[in-house]
Amino acid sequence: MIKKPEILSVKLGLAFNDPQLFSMALTHRSVGARNNERLEYLGDSVLGFVIAEQLYELFPDAGEGVLSRLRASLVNQSSLAELARQHNLGDYLILGSGELKSGGFRRDSILSDALEAIMGALLRDQGIDVCRQWILRLFADKFADLKVDDWNKDPKTRLQELMQANRKPLPVYELVGMSGADHAQTFEVKCSVVVTSETCNGVGISRKKAEQAAAENMLNLLQTKAK
Amino acid sequence: MIKKPEILSVKLGLAFNDPQLFSMALTHRSVGARNNERLEYLGDSVLGFVIAEQLYELFPDAGEGVLSRLRASLVNQSSLAELARQHNLGDYLILGSGELKSGGFRRDSILSDALEAIMGALLRDQGIDVCRQWILRLFADKFADLKVDDWNKDPKTRLQELMQANRKPLPVYELVGMSGADHAQTFEVKCSVVVTSETCNGVGISRKKAEQAAAENMLNLLQTKAK
Repeated sequence: MIKKPEILSVKLGLAFNDPQLFSMALTHRSVGARNNERLEYLGDSVLGFVIAEQLYELFPDAGEGVLSRLRASLVNQSSLAELARQHNLGDYLILGSGELKSGGFRRDSILSDALEAIMGALLRDQGIDVCRQWILRLFADKFADLKVDDWNKDPKTRLQELMQANRKPLPVYELVGMSGADHAQTFEVKCSVVVTSETCNGVGISRKKAEQAAAENMLNLLQTKAK
Repeated sequence: MIKKPEILSVKLGLAFNDPQLFSMALTHRSVGARNNERLEYLGDSVLGFVIAEQLYELFPDAGEGVLSRLRASLVNQSSLAELARQHNLGDYLILGSGELKSGGFRRDSILSDALEAIMGALLRDQGIDVCRQWILRLFADKFADLKVDDWNKDPKTRLQELMQANRKPLPVYELVGMSGADHAQTFEVKCSVVVTSETCNGVGISRKKAEQAAAENMLNLLQTKAK
């Protein structure tokens, strides 16, 4: 049974001036033309901004690369779906009959889109300041758990820890080429991991540097695939 | 000769409470550790948000896909570099000696990063409302030129018009495969354009649908390459 949006809105600490906007945020495109896709587009952009700004303030010593990685670790489909589940968002989704039968209310993409759409609806209804505050409250636990040191680690260490966290074999690095004269050699290394059949190469002025470059490329590849 | 930041700030209609922040926005990483990379990260996110919100308001009937394409057409390296050049940003950039010699002040990436960094600095200095207003003023002409109808066109039409605008030969579509029984055939079409050696395939339940899918993939490929 689909529960009433008003109940969810109270649970989320939201009081909409325009309750229609909130209902629309919960409405999947399988229902029809009046759905949450536009609000999700808006919510995605305000979420990215609010989290970027907060990280900028929280970590004054972190470089741009670390800030971007921290943001990607907070804002992604699975972390949003997790937050949606914590608030039982699935019970309130308005889905078409096909999605309803196939269990759309459990799907990461649908949950994460609806949560972003709520952010977009709140922005329209009450402006950026209220929306920012609500997003930061929603993400408070995730911010508290952030360890910036993890993101300062070098790519090989991060890739190794990623494999260990998923109980997979460690990455394999293989020298595939060397070129240049003795005093100005460059090395090319291939990195393989069991979770994908694709491999990533890296080039550097030492074998170690080439391995780091290959690991960085592999991390980027895995991140792209996870999206 | 590098001109003083104060002159640029007046030309841009900006009055910074903290002029150091504005200087930092103009400072390329080739100068040293104190550079504009963090501000660029922040500016990139606020720019994406402000443009997304404005498009949402301007085009109440446009779907999420059209809004995303409109945003990508406004916010990309070459459009930002163009805006930077209109304000002679290159004359005010603070670059390391290597970048100075190699003409970094003319490079799209450096110009576009500095413009985003100015947005980030303005956000820090004067908050989101002032920053939003300034961004929208900066983009006023680009918004005035937007034709939403262009983005509602189907992928084949858009790809064809893109080639024509660049005085290139039209895309070529070639049927590369058919499968399935008579009543449930699928078609596979390959799309080629002269601007890249890569080709893109598309699959559909009619030859026409397969061509549209291939054109869409080609547009995405070209957009990725342009970044």
